[in-house]
Amino acid sequence: RVNGDRLWDMLMEMAKIGPGIAGGNNRQTLTDEDAEGRRLFQRWCEDAGLTMGVDTMGNMFMTRAGTDPDALPVYIGSHLDTQPTGGKYDGVLGVLAGLEAVRSMNDLNITTKHPIVVTNWTNEEGARFAPAMLASGVFAGVIDQDYAYGRKDMDGKTFGDELKRIGWLGDEVVGARKMHAYFEYHIEQGPILEAENKQIGVVTHCQGLWWLEFTLSGREAHTGSTPMNLRVNAGLAMARIMEMVQEVAMSEQPGAVGGVGQVKFSPNSRNVLPGTVVFTVDIRTPEQAKLDRMRATIEAKAAEICSALGVGCSVEAVGHFDPVTFDEKLVASVRKAAEDLGYSHMNIISGAGHDACWAAKVAPSTMIMCPCVGGLSHNEAEEISKDWATAGADVLLRAVLETAEI
Amino acid sequence: RVNGDRLWDMLMEMAKIGPGIAGGNNRQTLTDEDAEGRRLFQRWCEDAGLTMGVDTMGNMFMTRAGTDPDALPVYIGSHLDTQPTGGKYDGVLGVLAGLEAVRSMNDLNITTKHPIVVTNWTNEEGARFAPAMLASGVFAGVIDQDYAYGRKDMDGKTFGDELKRIGWLGDEVVGARKMHAYFEYHIEQGPILEAENKQIGVVTHCQGLWWLEFTLSGREAHTGSTPMNLRVNAGLAMARIMEMVQEVAMSEQPGAVGGVGQVKFSPNSRNVLPGTVVFTVDIRTPEQAKLDRMRATIEAKAAEICSALGVGCSVEAVGHFDPVTFDEKLVASVRKAAEDLGYSHMNIISGAGHDACWAAKVAPSTMIMCPCVGGLSHNEAEEISKDWATAGADVLLRAVLETAEI
Ligand SMILES: NC(=O)NCCC(=O)O
Ligand SMILES: NC(=O)NCCC(=O)O
Repeated sequence: RVNGDRLWDMLMEMAKIGPGIAGGNNRQTLTDEDAEGRRLFQRWCEDAGLTMGVDTMGNMFMTRAGTDPDALPVYIGSHLDTQPTGGKYDGVLGVLAGLEAVRSMNDLNITTKHPIVVTNWTNEEGARFAPAMLASGVFAGVIDQDYAYGRKDMDGKTFGDELKRIGWLGDEVVGARKMHAYFEYHIEQGPILEAENKQIGVVTHCQGLWWLEFTLSGREAHTGSTPMNLRVNAGLAMARIMEMVQEVAMSEQPGAVGGVGQVKFSPNSRNVLPGTVVFTVDIRTPEQAKLDRMRATIEAKAAEICSALGVGCSVEAVGHFDPVTFDEKLVASVRKAAEDLGYSHMNIISGAGHDACWAAKVAPSTMIMCPCVGGLSHNEAEEISKDWATAGADVLLRAVLETAEI
Repeated sequence: RVNGDRLWDMLMEMAKIGPGIAGGNNRQTLTDEDAEGRRLFQRWCEDAGLTMGVDTMGNMFMTRAGTDPDALPVYIGSHLDTQPTGGKYDGVLGVLAGLEAVRSMNDLNITTKHPIVVTNWTNEEGARFAPAMLASGVFAGVIDQDYAYGRKDMDGKTFGDELKRIGWLGDEVVGARKMHAYFEYHIEQGPILEAENKQIGVVTHCQGLWWLEFTLSGREAHTGSTPMNLRVNAGLAMARIMEMVQEVAMSEQPGAVGGVGQVKFSPNSRNVLPGTVVFTVDIRTPEQAKLDRMRATIEAKAAEICSALGVGCSVEAVGHFDPVTFDEKLVASVRKAAEDLGYSHMNIISGAGHDACWAAKVAPSTMIMCPCVGGLSHNEAEEISKDWATAGADVLLRAVLETAEI
């Protein structure tokens, strides 16, 4: 079993970097705060005897050697970056629980055949640069590195320039590493485990996603002196698309979600009808056919809505992954670990995307989840208990040890 | 008659200050560009023999002396500030046509009994600081100066600090001046004059306005892992309110408009349902009863929409003026001037708000309008012809001379 107090102390220490305004964190990827968080993690890892590799996407790989020089490593990963108003556990728990697992192995003088690599993936959140899970996507070969380098934040700064600026551009070729297995431990970010009173979520699948960025072109015009029948109202078109997305998601219940988190009006002046409206629709479901159908329906209906208003409509997919099925053998090892440790557990489908979704493209992968209060995440009020955190880390340690072979 | 070429040259010269990105202007109030525009206007006025007074709201008063020391001045005013993506004529035409009228009087050696004061009002647009017509509102005693000083732009900078920073905080007590009459010449900003093929709009009324700033409180949550039935979706509530505002405006046709120009999602991240959504509804109509009814309907229906979604809703009126009827005698003098000069004309109701609406509270006031291409304004593509600009300035000169008594 891990040292839950030590894990919790690390979580609280990391949360001091990039504090939010309401108890959470604003440690967005490739900011100075991200760099500071990385340095703290590096120091802790090196104190625990791990050696660091950093690749050209800024992914950090902290290695504990194995006994067999030919054995591929077992990876434990997640992310230290946060949303602009994020919680203290989303991502961070998985990285620091990986480190805690290694520290526990050190304490217990356990050696493994396979090396263990604790990993911090760059820009998992996708808040500053779309898409989410950008650097694990490049690692897995599904996203092009040059495309990633060119992604821009709201201020027009690119991923590539910012990675260099904060000093975390490594020299390892991204994706060159081969993995024996990949584990990711994460808070659920949804309400199911808490409602079902289970300590451990055995993650069997992850739902698929599309991020559809709509750019609507209306006509900038005076809100007072432009008669209703002469308006080319891109804001109204956006409102209708939002309502339609809601209807499409509701019509696909259960097992589908759709919503809008980001909106930009231009020029965004009270007495000017917007000339341009940009917003991102986020749709998800675990079923491939449903995911494709939702996307097609939304794009077709949006085109109708816009054409009825004379508004121009273009759509760019700025994020996408298909539904994922995790590795059967690793899933079973997580379930068995929970059982052996006496923790209550249930199968669960991840509602959020995770770096494990891309890792699954290149290696046997799986995830472990713990509950979070009220299912709340992407909110500074995100909360978990120390007991929950510890239980998942215990399961992680046990499943990893089984896979890495003592 | 005025010198149309000279007026046009001034318009083109002023448009070089704070150029936009598509042929228009971004010379928002209390920016460095605003200060530069003011200095150019001051220089031109002083070259024409006018003397400057500046009040504590930054309003500029450029005086041409009259022959009767006891006669109150005739004011000609409008504004040099623009929208973030504004046109070259909105406001600027009225100020520079006032100056051109004075230059023509100088050329013709005309003296008047009443002094003439050409006025540039601060923050007419209300783009940077709500409400619009802020400084003329304080001048007219309907807006409190301390309230005005405390108004904040999107970056949290206050009107008072910015006025000081750009060096245009004057020492005259705002509103201390008494006016014999107030004239404002402006582009129509709507499609009627051009469609009716008239050179001059004789402005009889101005429609009333409410700016209702809605603050909706939802629950920040993950767009992927938060089931549809657990969402407290402030963005969806906004979409429904936008559609409802459209319906209310359509149900009050003819003679009513409603729309939304400004929206702010927080935290505005693609995978976070917004915790807070702030947006401004702009509704206008020339009928007092209709204006009151629209406001009440929108507030009541918005409350219903929000409560059905569990979303918190608060509304602040950040801009307001009642419908205005301009001074009968001055309106007649404008009509007569157009007739005497042989310009085609028609009565018109101003769709936009103007400083004349506040001046009308404290002095006999009226307005003159010229057409603009396609009725387009609050758009960098805003356009007028030199002939249109000149015709309105001729009418202004003639009506002012009648009122100021040669
Ligand atoms: N786990 C998590 O919140 N990842 C961000 C990507 C997503 O939106 O699912
Ligand atoms: N004329 C003009 O555009 N004024 C701005 C205030 C308004 O929105 O009507």
